[in-house]
Amino acid sequence: MPANVLDGAEVARQTRNELRARVEAFTASRKRPPGLGIVLVGHDPGSEVYVRNKLKSAGETGLRADLHRLPEDASLVEVVAAVRELNASGVHDGILVQSPLPAALGPEAEQVVFDEVDPAKDVDGFHPVNVGRLVQGRPFLVPCTPLGILELLDRTGTPIKGRHAVVIGRSDIVGKPVALLLLHRHATVTICHSRTVDLPKVAATADILVVAIGRAGFVTRDFVKPGATVIDVGMNRVDDREQARKLFPEGHPRLAAFDRRGSVLVGDVHPEVWEVAGALTPVPGGVGPLTIALLLSNTLKAAEARS
Amino acid sequence: MPANVLDGAEVARQTRNELRARVEAFTASRKRPPGLGIVLVGHDPGSEVYVRNKLKSAGETGLRADLHRLPEDASLVEVVAAVRELNASGVHDGILVQSPLPAALGPEAEQVVFDEVDPAKDVDGFHPVNVGRLVQGRPFLVPCTPLGILELLDRTGTPIKGRHAVVIGRSDIVGKPVALLLLHRHATVTICHSRTVDLPKVAATADILVVAIGRAGFVTRDFVKPGATVIDVGMNRVDDREQARKLFPEGHPRLAAFDRRGSVLVGDVHPEVWEVAGALTPVPGGVGPLTIALLLSNTLKAAEARS
Repeated sequence: MPANVLDGAEVARQTRNELRARVEAFTASRKRPPGLGIVLVGHDPGSEVYVRNKLKSAGETGLRADLHRLPEDASLVEVVAAVRELNASGVHDGILVQSPLPAALGPEAEQVVFDEVDPAKDVDGFHPVNVGRLVQGRPFLVPCTPLGILELLDRTGTPIKGRHAVVIGRSDIVGKPVALLLLHRHATVTICHSRTVDLPKVAATADILVVAIGRAGFVTRDFVKPGATVIDVGMNRVDDREQARKLFPEGHPRLAAFDRRGSVLVGDVHPEVWEVAGALTPVPGGVGPLTIALLLSNTLKAAEARS
Repeated sequence: MPANVLDGAEVARQTRNELRARVEAFTASRKRPPGLGIVLVGHDPGSEVYVRNKLKSAGETGLRADLHRLPEDASLVEVVAAVRELNASGVHDGILVQSPLPAALGPEAEQVVFDEVDPAKDVDGFHPVNVGRLVQGRPFLVPCTPLGILELLDRTGTPIKGRHAVVIGRSDIVGKPVALLLLHRHATVTICHSRTVDLPKVAATADILVVAIGRAGFVTRDFVKPGATVIDVGMNRVDDREQARKLFPEGHPRLAAFDRRGSVLVGDVHPEVWEVAGALTPVPGGVGPLTIALLLSNTLKAAEARS
């Protein structure tokens, strides 16, 4: 029996619908909508897609969203200045600096820029104050993807308390914050990564397995306890047919799509896991749409707190 | 073969000896010693002991340490004022507010007071900015007990990378920060707590087991994989002879000490674990002395960063 589909797109729709009413109430009482300012430096194709989706989704939910574009060769001073302008803005409640910044800005640039964002407007939840508050169990603005994962688990009735959650990946954006959220919801939590010894065996102890490592199809059936809930945060573009063929058999519609387009988007979880897991997020259509919905939710939260 | 003794008192002595030279160099070049300001509210007997040990140890290591006493019935405003005075002080580089504050100040008082401490002087590492920086892998001031545990593991040559560490307890002071430190040192980390299902079985998967729950002798031999390294953070006063008898057999010197004094200090780990573990911290004389040594180290670090 194949795994239940954890339909992130549908949960995101529900979440946005509920948000819309709150956004309307905010707008009616404050005579302005909640506002999101996005800083985009350069023209990374992936970032262009993400930003377009964020702007569209914000507009459909009744928020104001403004894009502050900077050229590919903008200096760090210029990027920081754009953030400070949004910090001072009365109509922008949330600020998001689209990652990645151009490599020419140097390896420390993102941290420097993220640290400049007013913690009260930090809708990505990257500022150390917001990270610290999350750890201390008094969260204010929390990273969107981890929040989306919790929303998905809750809205699909997946119990968390007392269950063993294994998180593969220890990034600041997904792995560590989702581990903390699950811990505070009384899961027993294990964090794994590239140095973990016998990773499949550790992963297979999970009732809830969260995978966020950015490696196409890395998690195969031997990583998964039968019946486990698996959350696939990966979003990898595969443009090598041999690799695509390792994920999908000849004749599979996704492989046919590859042959038409020359690439296919896949998660970190191998499709064969559908045969083992109890429930699994599809890619695309799983965690991705929820990340955007929770970004809008964070913006409204920041707006309500600021007023 | 009984477990090796992880001699925290000896490691703390080494650490303090190395600190002393750095403290002397600081004092010579800045014409003043690094300074620690301690705020103590009321007369909790445990706190009196801890504060006395901290003052003594600071003095022996060449630091200046001043005690700011407030009466048991001090108001929250008065406690905050004491912290602000130390924030503004030129001769105090580190500030410590001794926990617990009197219960009459209310359940939120500690968080309110800790948040007032200048992050640059926050030698306990409790301010959200310092917690956030720890999570993000750019630690500045980190809680002393977790730092002491890492110091002990390193100075006794205990490998961390790739090993499975299980932390029992998820406090902000010990459990969560030690889990993060071990994770950043490339351990696979599991965090357990009161809601963990089948705790002994999970604990017994650990190569390194850290116990910080405050329950005398809770961790018995069935929690421990033979040969594991066990760090006992607990410090519990047992004043019931029946309970003491469950920990020590008749004729044991610790039970004889109980009979003389009417109480005995024990850790969270049952003494029978000496027969199973590969290495174990004694209580007292394990993690406790290291916590104070790392407090002095944090004070020097804050002093050096401030100047």
